[in-house]
Amino acid sequence: MLRTFFTLVMSFRTLLALVTPGKTAAFFSCTSQLGAIRQSHTVSSCDHRLKAISFGHCQRHLNCWRQICTKRTLSALCTMNSSVEAEEMTIFFKEDTYGGVIIDPKSITNFSAEAFGAELDSNLETWQTCNKRGVWLKIPTAQSHLVPVAVSRGFDFHHASPGAAMLTKWLPSTPCTLPHGPSHQVGVGAFVLNESNEMLVVQEKSGPVGGMDFWKVPTGLINSGEDLGDAAIREVKEETGVDAKVDSILMFRHSHGFNFGTSDLWFVVKMIPTTFELTAQESEIAAVRWMPVEEFQEQPRLKNSPLHAQVGRILAASKSSGYEGVSYTKLLSRISSSREAYLYHNKL
Amino acid sequence: MLRTFFTLVMSFRTLLALVTPGKTAAFFSCTSQLGAIRQSHTVSSCDHRLKAISFGHCQRHLNCWRQICTKRTLSALCTMNSSVEAEEMTIFFKEDTYGGVIIDPKSITNFSAEAFGAELDSNLETWQTCNKRGVWLKIPTAQSHLVPVAVSRGFDFHHASPGAAMLTKWLPSTPCTLPHGPSHQVGVGAFVLNESNEMLVVQEKSGPVGGMDFWKVPTGLINSGEDLGDAAIREVKEETGVDAKVDSILMFRHSHGFNFGTSDLWFVVKMIPTTFELTAQESEIAAVRWMPVEEFQEQPRLKNSPLHAQVGRILAASKSSGYEGVSYTKLLSRISSSREAYLYHNKL
Repeated sequence: MLRTFFTLVMSFRTLLALVTPGKTAAFFSCTSQLGAIRQSHTVSSCDHRLKAISFGHCQRHLNCWRQICTKRTLSALCTMNSSVEAEEMTIFFKEDTYGGVIIDPKSITNFSAEAFGAELDSNLETWQTCNKRGVWLKIPTAQSHLVPVAVSRGFDFHHASPGAAMLTKWLPSTPCTLPHGPSHQVGVGAFVLNESNEMLVVQEKSGPVGGMDFWKVPTGLINSGEDLGDAAIREVKEETGVDAKVDSILMFRHSHGFNFGTSDLWFVVKMIPTTFELTAQESEIAAVRWMPVEEFQEQPRLKNSPLHAQVGRILAASKSSGYEGVSYTKLLSRISSSREAYLYHNKL
Repeated sequence: MLRTFFTLVMSFRTLLALVTPGKTAAFFSCTSQLGAIRQSHTVSSCDHRLKAISFGHCQRHLNCWRQICTKRTLSALCTMNSSVEAEEMTIFFKEDTYGGVIIDPKSITNFSAEAFGAELDSNLETWQTCNKRGVWLKIPTAQSHLVPVAVSRGFDFHHASPGAAMLTKWLPSTPCTLPHGPSHQVGVGAFVLNESNEMLVVQEKSGPVGGMDFWKVPTGLINSGEDLGDAAIREVKEETGVDAKVDSILMFRHSHGFNFGTSDLWFVVKMIPTTFELTAQESEIAAVRWMPVEEFQEQPRLKNSPLHAQVGRILAASKSSGYEGVSYTKLLSRISSSREAYLYHNKL
């Protein structure tokens, strides 16, 4: 099988100089496929037997996509006598700012395990020659037959979520410096205080304290992309039917070795209710009520847990003696991108 | 092939009543394998053809392990005339407190893809009959050939880290309520201030601001199981050679859509240096110096980013005008386990 490829990683201006007989690979700085090239550039001949690749112009900050030529592309670029597979399968990738490459998951959709293995081997050889560092390979669940193929080439899981797993391979002989994946669950607890100085509490149906005579504040994990205050508003509404607005962040707890070995950050959000009628969530909540803070603190399970006793003291102090929580502002960050983020801090 | 199994989920005291002719499965509440049973209990006969399983005694809070009998176990428990595979492959599991089952990853080590598929099918049927909810299946990287097998049975990725991927399947027809996996990276930035009111800053070699004329505080992701202060101490030492101790947490930023779609929490830790000699980390840091806070704030990239301008104002305020950070205590939590965790809060 002819495994010629025509990889383009150069500035557009120098492309014509590169695409000459004797070159089988070049790089091209573009953001997606090589449609433009396919249309507008032709080369008179091309030696498919040459495997050496010129990487001299491979630069860090180019956003590069690799292109293995299809028959149509090769026909446009080279005058060929050899037979070429029609529409050969292609792995696309781009470079990151740490000297690594990120494979485009869309480009691996239609591979068989065997074809993917061959293609990956070819790419790994290329990247190693190019002194690339980390290779990022996101495999959609629907293509999970490619996972063992990647693992057999030295890839390992990095992180995953429903729909896809990210695998990585570190190419240099030096120790791997790839950042690890998401390591933390983030949850919120809502301290909702009404005008009678009573707090909103629930009993859960399942979980570690499910079915026990134990009252707790409404809690929950934040959803993907959700901010702390929004999560607290949503959880309070879901679990108790109460509408509430955010006042401040009173404290947070950081602990390790939770579900499946992950770490956990739990933020206690002080909230002001705007409705007071209680409707317990059928699936999760066994009971819901308003309870004086002192009664909440007196529960044996809380009193016997030094951490939760302190949580109770802070709740009580924020009710009575002016303990102030952390406030926050949504601000635009422009260091390496333009995105909004919340900055949480005490009053300036 | 005889696929008889002898699953034991009952209290130990009622075991003998259950292990009678006509029963092919029962449950037993123990924390690990059924070694004790194997040794001490025998039953005169056992009908291997019966596939019906009694689940009436399957209780939520039992810590159950499923056991498909090996030839040896069956011989001990039943008088058999049928042939049984020697040491049949077995999936072990335990129940969680949410009505789900957690498969023991050690028990799937030696399965072929085909045998695992058959075994998983058998178990899924059992769990569905038993009205189980979420099934948790952790597949070690070395057994990645089992990933497509699980996916073909409706499992999807939940989370992963080097060494293994966790897959889940929701059994009921109701919407899935499994908590999502770790969603956040957690990082620290260190505001290390010397006695001349100069702060410790670095220039990075790679990354979004790598190779630019931009000074930033030492930063890094926390390691697995590491606390915020410890991470700050480690990063400052690694990147600059400076020893420093933790003073307080000044602020934190919460943002979304970072690397690979994960969210990010970044805590700024105020630190007091105990050594002052600078040694830039060769692999990551291009330059390191002590810099007046005012000069740091004047950098155009910081001034043009509303969020970072506010970070700079808080740093300056914590230096000069008494802005107080969040303090913290390591406390024992005893609600559902006994583990230490840090609780971060303002002064009471």
